[in-house]
Amino acid sequence: MGEFDLIERWFTRTPRRSPLGVGDDCALLQPRPGQQLAVSTDMLVEGRHFLSTVQPRRLGHKALAVNLSDLAACGAQPLAFTLALSMPRVDEHFLEGFAGGLWALADQAGIELVGGDTTAGPLTISITVFGEVPAGQALLRSGARPGDDIWVSGRLGDARLALEAFRGRVALDGEGWTQTRRAMECPQPRCALGVELRGVAHSAIDVSDGLIGDLRHVLQRSGVGAVIEEQLLPRSACVASQALDLQRVCLLTGGDDYELLFTASPQKRPQVMRAAERSETPVTRIGTIQVEPGLLVWDGSGCSVSLNSFQAFDHFAA
Amino acid sequence: MGEFDLIERWFTRTPRRSPLGVGDDCALLQPRPGQQLAVSTDMLVEGRHFLSTVQPRRLGHKALAVNLSDLAACGAQPLAFTLALSMPRVDEHFLEGFAGGLWALADQAGIELVGGDTTAGPLTISITVFGEVPAGQALLRSGARPGDDIWVSGRLGDARLALEAFRGRVALDGEGWTQTRRAMECPQPRCALGVELRGVAHSAIDVSDGLIGDLRHVLQRSGVGAVIEEQLLPRSACVASQALDLQRVCLLTGGDDYELLFTASPQKRPQVMRAAERSETPVTRIGTIQVEPGLLVWDGSGCSVSLNSFQAFDHFAA
Repeated sequence: MGEFDLIERWFTRTPRRSPLGVGDDCALLQPRPGQQLAVSTDMLVEGRHFLSTVQPRRLGHKALAVNLSDLAACGAQPLAFTLALSMPRVDEHFLEGFAGGLWALADQAGIELVGGDTTAGPLTISITVFGEVPAGQALLRSGARPGDDIWVSGRLGDARLALEAFRGRVALDGEGWTQTRRAMECPQPRCALGVELRGVAHSAIDVSDGLIGDLRHVLQRSGVGAVIEEQLLPRSACVASQALDLQRVCLLTGGDDYELLFTASPQKRPQVMRAAERSETPVTRIGTIQVEPGLLVWDGSGCSVSLNSFQAFDHFAA
Repeated sequence: MGEFDLIERWFTRTPRRSPLGVGDDCALLQPRPGQQLAVSTDMLVEGRHFLSTVQPRRLGHKALAVNLSDLAACGAQPLAFTLALSMPRVDEHFLEGFAGGLWALADQAGIELVGGDTTAGPLTISITVFGEVPAGQALLRSGARPGDDIWVSGRLGDARLALEAFRGRVALDGEGWTQTRRAMECPQPRCALGVELRGVAHSAIDVSDGLIGDLRHVLQRSGVGAVIEEQLLPRSACVASQALDLQRVCLLTGGDDYELLFTASPQKRPQVMRAAERSETPVTRIGTIQVEPGLLVWDGSGCSVSLNSFQAFDHFAA
């Protein structure tokens, strides 16, 4: 099976909303009048972003999920995506599973594949997603204001705890292992919440490199500081049962959470709760934006946690 | 140097036409009213699409050039692009050259970098390009009509000849080596010609996998056949001086030509010549679209060349 048969068999469907899909030199997109197009690209490399032990179906899901998470953080409605896939050989078992996971999430999110590229090489997946957002309404990192509540969706740290278990640094029981591994391999992008937060949140980012690192991007871009209350950070029973140091690694530096971190005026708490209900996404208030630059994390006893040992995930350092 | 410093240093500029560029979860694009967005993605893998001996500057040029060539084939005006880059380590010499080549071509083509991703991994480059084309005016593979002239820009086969020299299958003199290597490593995308061909050409494709293979895509999509005259295929003196079999490999199956192959009514010959002049791009008429399906290549003596041994480039077979 060659490149073109492969695309025809696994990666071609007639587009519903885009004027032209897979099969020409370019696809054609047409945002509706008054809409801007939000664009994001992520690249996943075997051994770096996923382990060779991952099920192909989960990998197909995750490759699209991490990109959808970026659209969610901007409040953009998913529209279309392209897929560039490099793999050592044409492995039908792998492609069957990978395409299955990809299409399942694509259908769920209402996003369509419009183009791409396949080639032989090390297993690498690069997806570019497109979403629509009304002009001027995109949620940005730069909008946080002093006094804003800081919110996070879902819960933090499960994916990192699974990684620590894979690395043999912690032992988890069967249920904990299943649940945290699922969080690592099958993140659920928060697209519906992102759309509901338009006009409600002042700023947003997706937590992909860890809470502290990603919050610092918001603080830097917005020219503000923040206080976080460690006790308030949402976590699973499995994370909560770990030693305090490991909990902090998982909650503060995590990585692969793909939750939304956003800020909104305290006056908007009812609207935030309504956005959470409508999108069926739990949200938790974890702190406050401050005028003074810097980031403080308060532990339960009123002391600040030293953040020197907690760095954001860096793909060239990890 | 980490991921974020790297992006800041080499891959961040303020966008001029896009509402939001590098640095948030998404970039924002806003096509002008009445315009569709043409989108294309290509992935380049070391050892497969380029040799480890390539100068970083030329690699930066080529990675963008092959994508711009897809916009050219659709008649789209370059607007913006994203870059996903995986590389084994942060190598400042490499990044300096790569970014230099990339920006030089980006400035020449009037396209701006709006986002991307960098990660550690095998050297792999995935670029997604965006161009504007008035709704309904994109050049497609599916528009060829019986009686159409078949045209090709520039000349064919130089890049393939350089590859054959790299593989030790042919020896080239100094000048031939320099010129063909330049064709392989520094292809010039035909964006200006593509834009001029709107409303003139019936169909277009870029020749990236070889003349025969790419022409067959046009024939299949358009439900037509074609006759090509081998003598008319434009070639350099260096290609013309090779043995006939090697010339045919270079001209017919080539690969990496990045010229435009397009069809237009014979009545439009003056308009095609004007498009070529305005875009300062040589074009050559090489054959005719036929009602009967199939592809025939006539040699100089009125016999048809057997095409069985000439297959399109396939990344999983080569």
